[in-house]
Amino acid sequence: MSYSPLIDELIDALRCLPGVGAKSAQRMSFQLLERNRPGAARLAAALAKAVDKVGHCASCRTLTENEQCFICADSRRDTDTICVVESPADVVAFEQSGDYKGLYFVLMGHLSPIDGIGPEEIGIDKLLQRTSELAVNELILATNPTVEGEATAYYITEQMRSRGIAVSRIAHGVPLGGELEYVDSGTLAHALKGRRRID
Amino acid sequence: MSYSPLIDELIDALRCLPGVGAKSAQRMSFQLLERNRPGAARLAAALAKAVDKVGHCASCRTLTENEQCFICADSRRDTDTICVVESPADVVAFEQSGDYKGLYFVLMGHLSPIDGIGPEEIGIDKLLQRTSELAVNELILATNPTVEGEATAYYITEQMRSRGIAVSRIAHGVPLGGELEYVDSGTLAHALKGRRRID
Ligand SMILES: [Zn+2]
Ligand SMILES: [Zn+2]
Repeated sequence: MSYSPLIDELIDALRCLPGVGAKSAQRMSFQLLERNRPGAARLAAALAKAVDKVGHCASCRTLTENEQCFICADSRRDTDTICVVESPADVVAFEQSGDYKGLYFVLMGHLSPIDGIGPEEIGIDKLLQRTSELAVNELILATNPTVEGEATAYYITEQMRSRGIAVSRIAHGVPLGGELEYVDSGTLAHALKGRRRID
Repeated sequence: MSYSPLIDELIDALRCLPGVGAKSAQRMSFQLLERNRPGAARLAAALAKAVDKVGHCASCRTLTENEQCFICADSRRDTDTICVVESPADVVAFEQSGDYKGLYFVLMGHLSPIDGIGPEEIGIDKLLQRTSELAVNELILATNPTVEGEATAYYITEQMRSRGIAVSRIAHGVPLGGELEYVDSGTLAHALKGRRRID
């Protein structure tokens, strides 16, 4: 049904959020207008400002409003290792694990010829330039274990091999603490194929 | 972790949306900035405009940017019946059922002395004024079947009784098509207590 042009437009606009359908967009609209107008005004301002100012890190391509992101700008990071990921959310996941001290390179996607996404779109030139200017000695490929992620990892491996840079791929398999019966069969097959001999 | 001041602020601001926690706020922020900046800009504008312009209907108190909402302004509605609900979402639910042709009055809440919400805050004066200016002959109480909703319905009933206006309460019980075993026990107890003799 129709409420009023402005409320209809708000409900419709909220549906651009991932995971928000018609019903929750309606609930969100009413809740904001009835009970949290300061929150709604703050969200409007935050969205407008982020859309206007957030771009990509000149060094690693992740999202940032600065010339360089806070990781690339941090002089304590090891500059001889670069971990290649598909998206800024993957950087967050690695940072939360707390174990990695090197730099990142964010492809902002993966190779997908069918969608017109080739090496240029995922910044391979920039990655090659970065690896040579930093004298990187290990490139860790952490693209997703999907068909496209694997193809992208393969492509980057070929590019690096011809330049003599060591490339590694993160391990995939059964998550720690995961019970076998709840692990999907693709992961299980992968874990089996990737088994290592215990000496 | 911290991304950049503007992205942190966006993630935090998205948490004003009902049902959106830290993890989904992060996913939403990245998704909007990576893939849907026009959608984000549109949402920012819709929020700002709605916060600025949407107020309450002068007749029934529901949310609208006009002096009167589209229902109160619709001359085809029956003006001798008013259905009293707690929130604009309840109006939507009744309109979607398609059976009701009268007007509404939206309390925008319920009596809650502990939170300082008394008759004035839920617009009882306005409701009394409306019932007399429209010569209403039936007031349907559709507040929620909660302690506060029942107390509010009871209070309104008392007010109307002394003015000789007929008051009815919508039926509560097992939903049509609902299987008894999936109905919560409170509803079931209510349905049992409210049983009617079949002649
Ligand atoms: Zn960076
Ligand atoms: Zn109205």
